[in-house]
Amino acid sequence: MRDWITRNEPAVLRELVSLLAIPNLASDSINIRRNADTLVAMLTRRGITARKLEVAGSPPAVYGELRTPGATRTIVMYAHYDGQPVDPAQWATPPWTPTMRDAPLDRNGSVIPLPDRGGILGDDARLYARSASDDKSPIVAMLAALDALRAARIPLTVNLKFFLEGEEEAGSDHLEAMLRQHAGLLTADGWIFCDGPVHQSRRPQVVFGVRGVMGAELTVYGPARALHSGHYGNWAPNPSVLLAHLLASMRDTEGSITIAGFNDDVRAVGSAERAAIAAAPPVDTLLRRELALGDVEGNGVPILERLLAPALNVRGLDGGPVGSGAANVIPTHATASIDFRLVPNQTPARVRELVEAHVRAQGYHIVHAEPTREERLQQARVARIQWEQGYPGMRTDMDAQFSRAIMKTVAAATGGEAAVIPMLGGSLPMYLFAEILRTPLAIVPMVNHDNNQHAANENLRIGNLRAGIELYAGLFAALGAEWQRSSRSSRSSRSSRGAMTSP
Amino acid sequence: MRDWITRNEPAVLRELVSLLAIPNLASDSINIRRNADTLVAMLTRRGITARKLEVAGSPPAVYGELRTPGATRTIVMYAHYDGQPVDPAQWATPPWTPTMRDAPLDRNGSVIPLPDRGGILGDDARLYARSASDDKSPIVAMLAALDALRAARIPLTVNLKFFLEGEEEAGSDHLEAMLRQHAGLLTADGWIFCDGPVHQSRRPQVVFGVRGVMGAELTVYGPARALHSGHYGNWAPNPSVLLAHLLASMRDTEGSITIAGFNDDVRAVGSAERAAIAAAPPVDTLLRRELALGDVEGNGVPILERLLAPALNVRGLDGGPVGSGAANVIPTHATASIDFRLVPNQTPARVRELVEAHVRAQGYHIVHAEPTREERLQQARVARIQWEQGYPGMRTDMDAQFSRAIMKTVAAATGGEAAVIPMLGGSLPMYLFAEILRTPLAIVPMVNHDNNQHAANENLRIGNLRAGIELYAGLFAALGAEWQRSSRSSRSSRSSRGAMTSP
Repeated sequence: MRDWITRNEPAVLRELVSLLAIPNLASDSINIRRNADTLVAMLTRRGITARKLEVAGSPPAVYGELRTPGATRTIVMYAHYDGQPVDPAQWATPPWTPTMRDAPLDRNGSVIPLPDRGGILGDDARLYARSASDDKSPIVAMLAALDALRAARIPLTVNLKFFLEGEEEAGSDHLEAMLRQHAGLLTADGWIFCDGPVHQSRRPQVVFGVRGVMGAELTVYGPARALHSGHYGNWAPNPSVLLAHLLASMRDTEGSITIAGFNDDVRAVGSAERAAIAAAPPVDTLLRRELALGDVEGNGVPILERLLAPALNVRGLDGGPVGSGAANVIPTHATASIDFRLVPNQTPARVRELVEAHVRAQGYHIVHAEPTREERLQQARVARIQWEQGYPGMRTDMDAQFSRAIMKTVAAATGGEAAVIPMLGGSLPMYLFAEILRTPLAIVPMVNHDNNQHAANENLRIGNLRAGIELYAGLFAALGAEWQRSSRSSRSSRSSRGAMTSP
Repeated sequence: MRDWITRNEPAVLRELVSLLAIPNLASDSINIRRNADTLVAMLTRRGITARKLEVAGSPPAVYGELRTPGATRTIVMYAHYDGQPVDPAQWATPPWTPTMRDAPLDRNGSVIPLPDRGGILGDDARLYARSASDDKSPIVAMLAALDALRAARIPLTVNLKFFLEGEEEAGSDHLEAMLRQHAGLLTADGWIFCDGPVHQSRRPQVVFGVRGVMGAELTVYGPARALHSGHYGNWAPNPSVLLAHLLASMRDTEGSITIAGFNDDVRAVGSAERAAIAAAPPVDTLLRRELALGDVEGNGVPILERLLAPALNVRGLDGGPVGSGAANVIPTHATASIDFRLVPNQTPARVRELVEAHVRAQGYHIVHAEPTREERLQQARVARIQWEQGYPGMRTDMDAQFSRAIMKTVAAATGGEAAVIPMLGGSLPMYLFAEILRTPLAIVPMVNHDNNQHAANENLRIGNLRAGIELYAGLFAALGAEWQRSSRSSRSSRSSRGAMTSP
């Protein structure tokens, strides 16, 4: 496999550079279509049945299908081919003029020509272009993986589908309609997402979930005009004090949310998740030192396990100026900006209900717009809650056959190097795939973390391209076989291991 | 008395206008001395033994003494003769060119000449000049009161002293030294402060105390740099949540301070204070309507009683932006700006000790400067407290003979109209007089509340000048006699009323 990669690297890079040279803003309907047509051609060249998928008003997605004789499982490989907007003035070389350097820009890498033979570039050489990492190189890597397997006559063990989105960086406005309209085509036993970077340690990683998110702004009210804190202090209600008590009633200092019923829908952490966390490289101590944290929330539970629980973050807090700007007043209102991080099986609608019930139980009348003078006069306490839409989290059970097969296959393809992360703390709308298509999902990324994603001078580290081709080749070759083995062992062990399996 | 005032109003106004024509910034050492010399002459003209008091670097205070044959009590009348800085461009007429108008400026009052006979001006005519209200007119009123009593051959019943300060509006930097250095001269049985306005209803008032104040800024810490709230939320400590819990631990939503020991030094409210509050015009309902307050702190206790208790006001609160400026972060720190309002017998030093002990008991390591990285790493929780100097409150017991005599005398002089206020919620450094001279104090003001004090177009309402002369004449004539009666009745009733007297 490595030999093939070395020998064919010039051709792989040429294909990638041709793709990167096509401007790819989702809003640039002519060029985005040129990208899609190019991708259809790239897939077709590999014998993949390919076409564009569209719904009214959307940039096209590219769909492809490759059946494997004898395979019983089908996976969909996801990537997006559109990119973030660019400010060319910020770029060292133009964003759609792919440029190779022998080292990263911040280590004074020099521009070099594309190599005409393999083995010339160091692992830390970089290819600079918009979407060099996010997400065009994973597309080229998965196709190169297919080429390499064929050249080595190694058969695939899964049926492959491809779903290459054309408006991810523009907010995926048409994604839900696209998934619903083409749900039949997109049916599979699992989805693999190639978006995002590997671990900051440059170790590969497999991720089985993301938290959801829902923002809320909570405002409580004091007097109709700011009052002298001497003449009215401890008679006129102080909204900052009310807000402090309200926030303190909602969560404790260890991060546990104390809103009645809030944790009822939280799916328990299974034994496979616990095992993965125990096996993951211990980062807590390093992080605490880096962040100067004398203590952390959660009574010493490792961060990876904490991220499997929901969070209530006070991201902003405003009850009038402090420092030299502070005045001796009781302010008219105080506001907290909150983001809830949600985990399966919590839903934004249910969280909203529970939070409002909690605030009501603290004696507040809830409004969703600026309260009127009459409301403030008639109600003992008024809280305004402004909800953002939000979306739920997603987590594929690591005990699932799909998950076990992915973990084993990735471990084999990376020499056991890959970290297994049950869930990212951050949020992506992956729930859409899980809810509409009802399949398990995993993120198996390949690009470097220091890729300037979304910014100027986005780049791909050549070592990551090489590792990515190997990784995806390993998945295509072994996943189906591993999956069937998991399935058999799962059936045989279920009766004896039942008590150990979490609900 | 009213006849005398009517007949002599032109002369009283001429004396006031002459005094107001002398610029009176404490920093203007030549003019401030001209004021002092003029005042010494005005006092001397009435047979008062007068002179300037000075300490190193201070503007002079004017001291006067008038013994009353047979009187057994001595009071000091306090006012200040310096004024706030002026911005002449903001004034309708120059600040040190006293100008009479037949009505207030905001009701289009016209400039009129000083009257050459009494009975011409309406009560709502206004004299515009810097210090027309704050505080030169009380000085002229008390001297006119003396003149009126003499003309009517009504004897005084107290010995009088006068202390006219020359740098009150500049911060009273030398006041403490002045009081200590001249404590012997300033010895008395009580002080009466003529500073400040009457009630907004235009009713006269007597006030027996003011709350003290001490500011503090409280900062608690999270991570050394702002973190993504998804990737770190419910693992990295959220400083806004810590602050909410800490504030909630310090006081409840009814205004009660829950810091251990905080209320131990609070002097109990006596029966006389309770009686005064019960007799005061009920303002709570009106205020609640005006301020759109559906509820107030203190479980329905009237505002006048609430102001006898200490307060913990959160006057500012900052844990990062809210609204459209909010970011999905865990911020590095959160800060509350607090002012404590203190009541007798609390001291700033003791409050500081108790607050720090409370914060420590919540698990915090306290620092008084920005904590180092090492401190943040080594301590589970770090709180920075920045204290302002502050000063204690002052309250003269309304059960004291002095207080009872003042209340009776003022009631007689005002036809029972005066409101009795146990304590102002706001803060003035009157503790200095109480602590150094160890005498009871009362505030008996006379000027209108709508006097533009400290601002442009400061003015005196002529009706208030008239009432002020009557009020001070009533005090001088009756206070001593009333005091002696109070003293006798107090001695006779002490044994039977002992159980009802608060500690």
